[in-house]
Amino acid sequence: MDSTQLDMTAPPDVYTARRARLASQLHKPIVIFSGFARARHYATNVHPFRANSNYLYFGGPPLEGAAWLIEPGSDGREGCTLFRPDSDFDEAVWVGALPSDEAIADASGVKSSSLKSPTDLESCVHGREVAAIYPPCPETLKTVKKLSLREVTEEEMLPIIDLRLSKDEHELKAMRRAADVGVKAHIAAMKACAVGLGEADVAAAIFSVLTSHQCYPSFTPIVSIRGEILHTEKYTNTLEAGQLLLVDSGAEEPTGYASDMTRTYPANGEFSPIQRQLYETVLRAEQDSIAACKPGTRFRDIHDLAARVICEGLVEAELLRGDPAELAARGVHTLFFVHGLGHLVGLDVHDMEDFGDLAGYAPGRTRRPEFGNKFLRLDRDLSPGMALTIEPGIYLVPEIWHNEALQEPFLDAINRPVVDKLLADNFGGIRIEETVVVREESFDGPEVLTKELPNDVDQVAKIVADN
Amino acid sequence: MDSTQLDMTAPPDVYTARRARLASQLHKPIVIFSGFARARHYATNVHPFRANSNYLYFGGPPLEGAAWLIEPGSDGREGCTLFRPDSDFDEAVWVGALPSDEAIADASGVKSSSLKSPTDLESCVHGREVAAIYPPCPETLKTVKKLSLREVTEEEMLPIIDLRLSKDEHELKAMRRAADVGVKAHIAAMKACAVGLGEADVAAAIFSVLTSHQCYPSFTPIVSIRGEILHTEKYTNTLEAGQLLLVDSGAEEPTGYASDMTRTYPANGEFSPIQRQLYETVLRAEQDSIAACKPGTRFRDIHDLAARVICEGLVEAELLRGDPAELAARGVHTLFFVHGLGHLVGLDVHDMEDFGDLAGYAPGRTRRPEFGNKFLRLDRDLSPGMALTIEPGIYLVPEIWHNEALQEPFLDAINRPVVDKLLADNFGGIRIEETVVVREESFDGPEVLTKELPNDVDQVAKIVADN
Repeated sequence: MDSTQLDMTAPPDVYTARRARLASQLHKPIVIFSGFARARHYATNVHPFRANSNYLYFGGPPLEGAAWLIEPGSDGREGCTLFRPDSDFDEAVWVGALPSDEAIADASGVKSSSLKSPTDLESCVHGREVAAIYPPCPETLKTVKKLSLREVTEEEMLPIIDLRLSKDEHELKAMRRAADVGVKAHIAAMKACAVGLGEADVAAAIFSVLTSHQCYPSFTPIVSIRGEILHTEKYTNTLEAGQLLLVDSGAEEPTGYASDMTRTYPANGEFSPIQRQLYETVLRAEQDSIAACKPGTRFRDIHDLAARVICEGLVEAELLRGDPAELAARGVHTLFFVHGLGHLVGLDVHDMEDFGDLAGYAPGRTRRPEFGNKFLRLDRDLSPGMALTIEPGIYLVPEIWHNEALQEPFLDAINRPVVDKLLADNFGGIRIEETVVVREESFDGPEVLTKELPNDVDQVAKIVADN
Repeated sequence: MDSTQLDMTAPPDVYTARRARLASQLHKPIVIFSGFARARHYATNVHPFRANSNYLYFGGPPLEGAAWLIEPGSDGREGCTLFRPDSDFDEAVWVGALPSDEAIADASGVKSSSLKSPTDLESCVHGREVAAIYPPCPETLKTVKKLSLREVTEEEMLPIIDLRLSKDEHELKAMRRAADVGVKAHIAAMKACAVGLGEADVAAAIFSVLTSHQCYPSFTPIVSIRGEILHTEKYTNTLEAGQLLLVDSGAEEPTGYASDMTRTYPANGEFSPIQRQLYETVLRAEQDSIAACKPGTRFRDIHDLAARVICEGLVEAELLRGDPAELAARGVHTLFFVHGLGHLVGLDVHDMEDFGDLAGYAPGRTRRPEFGNKFLRLDRDLSPGMALTIEPGIYLVPEIWHNEALQEPFLDAINRPVVDKLLADNFGGIRIEETVVVREESFDGPEVLTKELPNDVDQVAKIVADN
């Protein structure tokens, strides 16, 4: 068995080096668990297994119930133990034989002698202070408790975040593959979109493309004519002329790397004048934000830039009155652009979100408190190799327009009759999202991984209309 | 909002009656939790939510973090409290508004005054001995522990099992819908199967049909040219002429009811003589077993009947030597027919498997110890309304033929050269599976929910070959 069959992303030496870099900053040993397949509604019917991303990043093969033990000062080989599941006859009959120890060791960049049984973990950590990173599955939680492992501290997370923040060439290759499959799925979705069909038919096109490319959805695809509900997961509505369909979907390729992108288009392929106008505003916010993705730029400033562009468009469309920059500074955009501009992407579609805001927010920075802006998941100075989404949007959310407290500070700026007209027309929402990677030298903007997916208003409309 | 939008299966009175029947047999109150969406690899990226089946069965709407509290002696309305999530502004913006209390109460067959906040559960159970049924998700496990709820006892499970064993007309209607969608997906799979394509392309056809019908896979579809690995979940192989493709897949329709069916066919639509011969054997085992599904018949006897038919076919095909009935009695079939004949189906594709063998095995019955037969999940006397699968198979599992201890008792019966020939040809495996419902009166066999899916060898071959 070669490393491809083990679904590894990088050559073994890269994994060895990653572990060595982590080990050089550790003061205590750390255990990183792969986890187990998660139960769906009962324990024996499970979702497909997905290993913990930190475990994968440091070279773990995608096996259930495995774990790394990394000792401080390890060179990435000596002092790194991989606890891989024991082979079991019944298991081999039911789910297939495990890869050989030799194959695992070769792929992971450790010696075969560094492979042990999970039952050996207890004696290796007994009586020592050992930190643990683990996914939230009941079996692993039990082991962590039984072995008295302590939670990893923020200080111990930081070197991992530091490593994972900058994607190397192997990771970028995997992310480009994930983006390419995600683009194909979106184009299939556009072609499947037609009045009289359902959201479910468009979602079916996405699942079909992802599956045929041996990919998994990087998150449950959003395919909705209620685009203003930010994270709907059901596909129950029929597509009618005049409605906008919002499709937010990405692929996770077999090594675990994710893509994430959004397009919005009219069910019948014809934008109404106001739909077109607001689409163009969102696209301008998208393009201006992407152009601003330079090393050293603070991401929150780019979010605020997008907010200004959106306020300009909302004033032009007569939904708001006033000076766009002032409106954005006051936060009026949050009534329409209700979420953050973007988030990190990598092995997790919200990369390293299991570390909370420690990954997305630079040390000393915290979320702003106000509705809308508080949902921003990223506030770092951009640096080369950082992969992130840019995803501005404009939504007409009925809940917001029933909430007087939210509107109250902005009553002077809101042109309520125009808002009400769009609400009555079930405008929904428009989002455009690309995944980009910040580049270092001879700056000509970031690499846009999703650039093959058209976002020009006429081009998108044509693909939908032509099917 | 009507009950359809809440994805309920039955009219409210049916739910009220189910709760009343359970309550009449309770000595202590019982809490049944719906659970939460399960994390994929990190906590904030979740799989689509699927509520616990017991919670659904007793009329719970499919909402996360909900629970029933059922008091002994309740009439199904008074003494039944539904703890449904509190509405939250940010949640409404992100995932949509909750159904109204009135809509929930109407659909579930309780009064609006019986709806409470999950935070009220603590005061309702405080200081009392209360049993709990809950799915294995971390958040619910925490609540169970915090409120000191005790595990439900086997005695308390029995009345629930008794109710759920016999499917009523509402359940059967849902199961027929799930079967119909599953059949459509299988036919799409047959049509997608072609030499040079991949398992992934066939799997894509399945996901596409399920999604377009707003269904979910009732379990991760098995689409494999390595049919002898009973539960592969990957789709990495290319389809070659001469190979058999095993497809085991079912649909779960939005109310939660499942279907389950298997077909096996050659990648190029042409069965080789030995493939055809063993297919016909498996089909005969299938048909004889289905004909035997009469009320009062012990399911283990039907499993043993299938084993005899399979031994007959293996003798005819010269894989075994001897008297088929004697061979089956000795267990020689377990080298080829390595699993049980079937399992219960309903709201869970392995219905009530969260109760362990208490659901599948009648009181006093336990699993036989030997390899193969020990995997039988069902040993009850059949009764009207019981829904189950019939799924005999013949496999050439390399692991078994490398295991001398397993073969040793049967060396006189095994024609090893013929076995080795099939192993060398990567025979794989053949399984045919239908879902049936035992009928009560004027016995003319069970209802075969999957009867629209062809299983005749020539008909199946033609569908594959014609694409």
